[in-house]
Formats: sequence, structure tokens, C-alpha cells
Amino acid sequence: MKLSEFGEFRLIDMLAKMVDAPPESVIIGIGDDAAAWRTGETITLATTDALVEDVHFKPEQAPWRDVGWKALAVNVSDIAAMGGVPQYALVTLAVPPELTIRPVELIYTGLMDCAHEYGVAVIGGDVVRAPQVTVSVALIGRAGVDDRGRQRLMRRDAAQAGHTIAVTGSLGDSAAGLRRLLSGASADDPLVRAHLHPRPPLSAATTAVRMGVPCAIDISDGLLQDLGHICEMAGLGAVVRTEALPLSQPLRTTFPHDAIALACGGGEDYQLLLVAPAETIRLLRSVSDVRVTAIGEMEEHVGRRPRLIDGSGKEVRIEVTGWDQLKG
Amino acid sequence: MKLSEFGEFRLIDMLAKMVDAPPESVIIGIGDDAAAWRTGETITLATTDALVEDVHFKPEQAPWRDVGWKALAVNVSDIAAMGGVPQYALVTLAVPPELTIRPVELIYTGLMDCAHEYGVAVIGGDVVRAPQVTVSVALIGRAGVDDRGRQRLMRRDAAQAGHTIAVTGSLGDSAAGLRRLLSGASADDPLVRAHLHPRPPLSAATTAVRMGVPCAIDISDGLLQDLGHICEMAGLGAVVRTEALPLSQPLRTTFPHDAIALACGGGEDYQLLLVAPAETIRLLRSVSDVRVTAIGEMEEHVGRRPRLIDGSGKEVRIEVTGWDQLKG
Repeated sequence: MKLSEFGEFRLIDMLAKMVDAPPESVIIGIGDDAAAWRTGETITLATTDALVEDVHFKPEQAPWRDVGWKALAVNVSDIAAMGGVPQYALVTLAVPPELTIRPVELIYTGLMDCAHEYGVAVIGGDVVRAPQVTVSVALIGRAGVDDRGRQRLMRRDAAQAGHTIAVTGSLGDSAAGLRRLLSGASADDPLVRAHLHPRPPLSAATTAVRMGVPCAIDISDGLLQDLGHICEMAGLGAVVRTEALPLSQPLRTTFPHDAIALACGGGEDYQLLLVAPAETIRLLRSVSDVRVTAIGEMEEHVGRRPRLIDGSGKEVRIEVTGWDQLKG
Repeated sequence: MKLSEFGEFRLIDMLAKMVDAPPESVIIGIGDDAAAWRTGETITLATTDALVEDVHFKPEQAPWRDVGWKALAVNVSDIAAMGGVPQYALVTLAVPPELTIRPVELIYTGLMDCAHEYGVAVIGGDVVRAPQVTVSVALIGRAGVDDRGRQRLMRRDAAQAGHTIAVTGSLGDSAAGLRRLLSGASADDPLVRAHLHPRPPLSAATTAVRMGVPCAIDISDGLLQDLGHICEMAGLGAVVRTEALPLSQPLRTTFPHDAIALACGGGEDYQLLLVAPAETIRLLRSVSDVRVTAIGEMEEHVGRRPRLIDGSGKEVRIEVTGWDQLKG
């Protein structure tokens, strides 16, 4: 069977089964936003993510500097979603020999912009030849332990029935930006900016984990797909109110009919989905430096899938496939 | 200017200059086999290396299982060259959607073979779509501190004039194996095995660092090129005796005229080059589980380049370019 028929998520499941159970020092292995293990008194986190030319970006549409920024930012998003602080990056740059030096300089300029923004030190990497540009980043960070020795981590599997579901920022802008980009909009368009230059809400994540938010995931594959991962891991369902979804003014104006669908299934928002008791979310909203919006609740549900309801409580069906690397 | 004219090493220099000086917690940043930083009482190491289809291997020549093995082994080699112990791997697999599942299974089987051999836990990764297969590994390990608080690390910049230069195993087999592979030899040929299935001498490296060997590098680009890095970083020259080079019987038999050139410039041996006082090397030879051969000495020399001499002390010139990713 071809990988395109098999799909990304079945492939990841298959590979995860081929890997041995991790040693006792490992707190979180395959299946969360980042891996976590004990190093003395603290917890070390690690994640990796790659941007591939013509798959994740097209050079004629995405400025190289944004490609560099985004290659690091998507990894910062994974560390933030664990409640960690990013520290050290290793950068593998695959480049065709025919490429000139300038694009590589711009990629690194954007990457260092992002490194400065989030306090990351680039301490190693690799340059390899390849037919197309790929920027692959491995990012290492740390998470803490509170006064009572409890790990300060936000896990995908820690949601409980009755918990409130909240998201940071606004949703759907990145997917709308990609659509605008494909129809010729410039890199300056505000929606296009959201797509090319995502800004993971690191400080909100740090605040959330300190307040005791137990569960988070970064929204990279699309709200419903990522919330679906949380439902599966907790063995729960979830209800999301479409009226509560935080939609930006540019999104409402530019795509009035598709705004909800883009917010639910678009992907690449690199916002945080947080799941915690209602009171914790209320407290977080009052102190967070970015917008935090409650959009629904976790619930006992045999389907273990999120469902959407409108203002009158009626179930809404949206054709959302989310992003599958291999189905494309 | 195109990257093919600029070359890999100038590009790496340029990128290293674009990166800020690392924070105080970092012991070793860009420019060694792996990066190193303090985590409490221990030292954490991290490195990354990728194998790209049609650049580093051809599917019609290299069994997929060997590709998986080698993708991890080349990273183990980097951690070993620092005197560290590999612990955790993140694996990024780039695959074309038209590929079938079987090659991916075989890649992971080989990768897990290597993980078992060297005690590595695969704890995360990523699957992305790309026009060709790439296996990119980020490997994290640890190094220790001795009773007197000194870091147990082997650094590229720690060579001193008068130190003995030694290597593990035999040299040139991998390059000879590649040559055999290109002329149609099967994957079972012993030289081809050395190329497809390198076995970094991790336990020898661990012994070396405990005995106080201060300086090491893994031989990936070719003996003279890698020794050249050590000369540059120490501001020293080096002399290597061709008669002392450890050459395997298959290499001598198969390439009697080119054996020395392959051993000096071939690359991808993934053996260790160790630099230490003569007495330390003598002790290491007597206890190591793999062959350790003294091949020369570090010397004061304005050229800061290694030179080769034959049995009569006459300088030998060998046209050795080493491997440049971008010049190919």
C-alpha cells in the first residue's frame, strides 16, 4: 500500500509501535507535542519539525526570511504547548547546490529574529545537499517542578470531563492567509502574515502551566483535529460552540461564509488549545497578555470526537479533513 | 554566488557568524561534533545529521534497513566523539507519498537495531512529505563530570603540540566500499558493509574520555580533513606516518594502489581520531575493546595543516579533497 493511501496518522501509529517502551527517566515519549525526560531536578523537553520547499512553502510566495522564522516558530509552539521554555536549537539546512547564498542568509536572518524573540540559542546543526530546500529544527527546552515536586507540564492526555476548552488568539487566519496567498495576495496582507509568520503565545503558555492548566496542545493540524487528539487520549468527547470561536475582523470580512470552517479545520494557527477547570481558565483570561477564549467543554461521550453546536444548540456539520502530510 | 562554488565549509562559517554567542550555560556551541550545555550536575549533548536519498544513499544500492541503521549510527558517532553516551533520539522522516509502507518499516527496523546496539531510546519525531526520502535524526546524550568537578568531554580544540594522534579500527574501508558499490558489488561485500553499516566505537570513546583523552573528532569527512579541523582549532600542525595507518586486509587486497589515499581522504569511516599524551594512548590501547593505532603527532607548524610522511621520512602528497556536501 502506498503511504498516500495509508495516511500520516496511521503511519505514525505504526512507527510508534515499532519503538520500544521508553526508559524510566522518560516522562513523555512519542505522541505529545514534545518528548520530556528528567535531568536532575528539572525536566528537559525536545521536539523536531521541518519545513519542506513545495510542500510547506513555495519560494515564489513565501519570503525566505519568513521561512526561517516559521521553521523555528513551529517548534517553539510545540515546547510552549508542553508548558516549557525553549532554550537550544539545532538547525539542519538542506539546500540545492544551484541555490545562491542570499536565500540562505535570509533564512538564517528570519530564524535568528525568531530566536531573539523567544530567547533561543542556536548551538548546532548540519548542512546537507538536497534537490529542494528543507529547514529542519530540533528544539530543546526545559520545564519545571513546583514547590510540592509536581511536574509543571501540560499533557495531551490530562483532560477531564467538565473541563473548559479555551484557545489563545484567533483561529483560521493562517488557513485564510494561505488561501489568499494562493490567489495572489502579497506577503503584507494581514491574513497572509498570520500564515507566514506565526507567533506562538509562549508567555501565555508559561502563565497557564504555572496556574495549573493540566492539558494543552498546539493548534497545527486544525482545531477539530487537534482537539480530536485530546479526546482520543482522554477517552472523552468535547463540545465546541461555533458562536464562541474567536474570529479576527480580517477573517470575517474576507471569508464571511467560510470563517467558521477555516477556524475549525484550517490548521497552522500555532495558537494554544488549553483544557482546564472553568475557574482556572477564568483566572488565566484575567492575567494573560494574549486573548484567551473559552469555546466549549470536555464531556463523557462514546464517540470520542469533538462535536460542534450553533447558538441554538443544534449540531453543525463541517467538512473538515485537517492536514495530512501524506494525503497532502 | 552559487552554494556549489561557495562550498559547505565557507557556508557553515558564514552561518556560525550569524548566530549569537551562546549563553553562559553552553559549554560548546557550533563547531564541534556535538553541542554541550550544563543541566544541573551533568552535561547534556546534542547533535543532528541527515541522510538524503540520491545524495547520501541510492535505494537501488543501499538496503533500506541499512539506511535506517546508518541514519542513527552517524549521530551516535558524533556523541561518542565528545566522550558522551547517547540517550534519546528524535527522528524526522521525509517520504514521498508514492512510496509503499515496506521501505518505511525497514528503515525503522534498522534504526531500532542501532538504537538497541547503543542503548538509545527513540522518543519523538516527525513525518513530512518530500520528493525523496530523508532520514534526519537529532540525538541527545550526556557527559559526566569527574570527582574533581572537571568536565569529561573530548573537544576538537584541545590538542597540544607533542600529543600522539591515534585512530580506532581501520581506515578507508567505507570509501572503498562505496567504490565497490558503485561498480556493482553486493551489500554483503565486507567493504560495502563498512560503508552501509558503520559501527561507531562507543565503548572505546567512553574508555578514552575516562582515561583523560582531551581531544577527539569522528572521522566522517576523511582522516586528513578531520585532522585538519583539529589543527585549525589548536593552531598547530600534525604529522601522520603512512606506514602506521591501519588498513584492513580486504582494503589492501582490493585496492592495493589506492589504499593509502582511501584511508586518508575517503570519509565516512565513523572511527574516532583521538589526540592525547603518548602515555595515555598507550594505556588506552592496552584496555580498549577495539584496535587503537598511533599514526602520528601534533606539532608546531605554521601551515596548520596535517602532513603525511612515508617510511623514510619523505613527505607524501596525496590529492585529497574530502567530502563537501555542496560541491558533491
